[in-house]
Amino acid sequence: MLSHSRTPVTVVGLGAMGRALAAAFLDAGHPTTVWNRTAARAAPLVARGARHAGAVEDAVRASPLIVTCLTSYEATTEVLRLGAGALRGRTLITLNSGSPSGARAMAAWAGEHGARFLDGAVKNVPSAVGAHDTQLYYSGDRSVFAEYEDTLKVLGGDTSHLGDEPDLAALYESAVGATLLPALVGFFQGAAAVQSRGLPAATLVPYAVKWLEMIASVLPVFAREIDSGDYSEPLSSVRLFLETARWDEEFGRETGVDVSWNAPLHDLVRRAAEAGHVDDSISALVEVLRKPAVPSRS
Amino acid sequence: MLSHSRTPVTVVGLGAMGRALAAAFLDAGHPTTVWNRTAARAAPLVARGARHAGAVEDAVRASPLIVTCLTSYEATTEVLRLGAGALRGRTLITLNSGSPSGARAMAAWAGEHGARFLDGAVKNVPSAVGAHDTQLYYSGDRSVFAEYEDTLKVLGGDTSHLGDEPDLAALYESAVGATLLPALVGFFQGAAAVQSRGLPAATLVPYAVKWLEMIASVLPVFAREIDSGDYSEPLSSVRLFLETARWDEEFGRETGVDVSWNAPLHDLVRRAAEAGHVDDSISALVEVLRKPAVPSRS
Repeated sequence: MLSHSRTPVTVVGLGAMGRALAAAFLDAGHPTTVWNRTAARAAPLVARGARHAGAVEDAVRASPLIVTCLTSYEATTEVLRLGAGALRGRTLITLNSGSPSGARAMAAWAGEHGARFLDGAVKNVPSAVGAHDTQLYYSGDRSVFAEYEDTLKVLGGDTSHLGDEPDLAALYESAVGATLLPALVGFFQGAAAVQSRGLPAATLVPYAVKWLEMIASVLPVFAREIDSGDYSEPLSSVRLFLETARWDEEFGRETGVDVSWNAPLHDLVRRAAEAGHVDDSISALVEVLRKPAVPSRS
Repeated sequence: MLSHSRTPVTVVGLGAMGRALAAAFLDAGHPTTVWNRTAARAAPLVARGARHAGAVEDAVRASPLIVTCLTSYEATTEVLRLGAGALRGRTLITLNSGSPSGARAMAAWAGEHGARFLDGAVKNVPSAVGAHDTQLYYSGDRSVFAEYEDTLKVLGGDTSHLGDEPDLAALYESAVGATLLPALVGFFQGAAAVQSRGLPAATLVPYAVKWLEMIASVLPVFAREIDSGDYSEPLSSVRLFLETARWDEEFGRETGVDVSWNAPLHDLVRRAAEAGHVDDSISALVEVLRKPAVPSRS
């Protein structure tokens, strides 16, 4: 049995992602204990060899490493409160989404209970957990990451550590994730438009995929412009995007699709133009996204 | 000289994209005539062997194939009006952006002047013109596309024909393009957030690129759901996205970034939840993006 040489792991929270995490640990031979508020969720994992703990405290005591996958940091402390006495000397890793301040509060809470702590982010869908190129990143005490790196790689081969500050994973997760809903809604808008002509949404996919690749390919250029503050040699200018507001409206009218969610985006473009960036790179929008600093009292 | 066997081409409109198109034709040995309202723009191309036509009509007469790259269909007809008498028997290809109805009007206009017509879209930045994997697609009379396919491949190796209806390229360009501004603004928001911590925007790029790859990888699943209307086995549920509205606000507050442009996106998510899709796939948003059909008078 391989499993006796593998770190025992407890997974708390068996939503779709939590179940995928627990299954990946089981598949890799880790003695795996699971807990979920609705115990029925544990049954398929128990059938695959997981131990189901009836109480949170038992779940915590079962392993040196506790991985939580609940809906928020608040939900995590609410659940772990019941096993907090058992946390001392163990390692807690939280894999929920949330804000950087939430991650800092979570790290403080873990510290108060004597637990070592990492926060992490799974940058993919549950079905991708365990794949060699699935990305996860963590932040917090580097020595904790080093100790558990091999165990964590079971969840995804592209596993990295962002730094010792415990809120970096939440910062990057939110920063990276800011493209998700907007890009998806853009795709759904396109799908509805294509369907309005009686064509399947599937016909859009190869073009949309290539388009996202094109967008990805220009991000290094935009990042360089943003870091240097020099927007003067545009790949795509603010002026070019000024035109698109009008097309959006026509397009929505012609295809019967509600495109009104784009209005604030066109507003940002107009504000960038008004701020003198009309012939600058579209990346100059970052300047209008930054809120003015609160004036210091002097 | 190779050039004598290549189709002479005229490029009208020498913005960044028009210049890139003309340069690609020149590089491939096509006798190339150019026209631009501001003649100075033509100088670098003339230095590379292009002929500069002083009048639009001369530009049209110079070649059997006229490629325009102006800011809109309206701008295109306004410029070509002056050479319309020379269009008969020639082929006009428009590469501006615009709405499907604009493309149909353009096709009708070209037909009235006896020109064969294709509308097309360059799905990339000017610097990518001429590369083997740069994507362009065209719509309109298939026999015209077949005749000029080799010539058009000079502009990008991934060149295809969407169908005989002349507005399909505009439809797909708008449908595909709907992810661009939202995804870029999402990236700029992330860049501003990372910078607010004193970290370079460049540190975000590898994660953001991988994230866009992840988004691209799930589009076929979403398209299948949208085509079947079955949203019941979600990779990512509407409920999961309901939470993100709150994080967005916290994130904006903590990082000093204006995230208010996301509000209508969260609104769509809420409306999908209220419409009974809370445990369905996020692709069910397509249902709230479709405007109700105008009731028929019966």
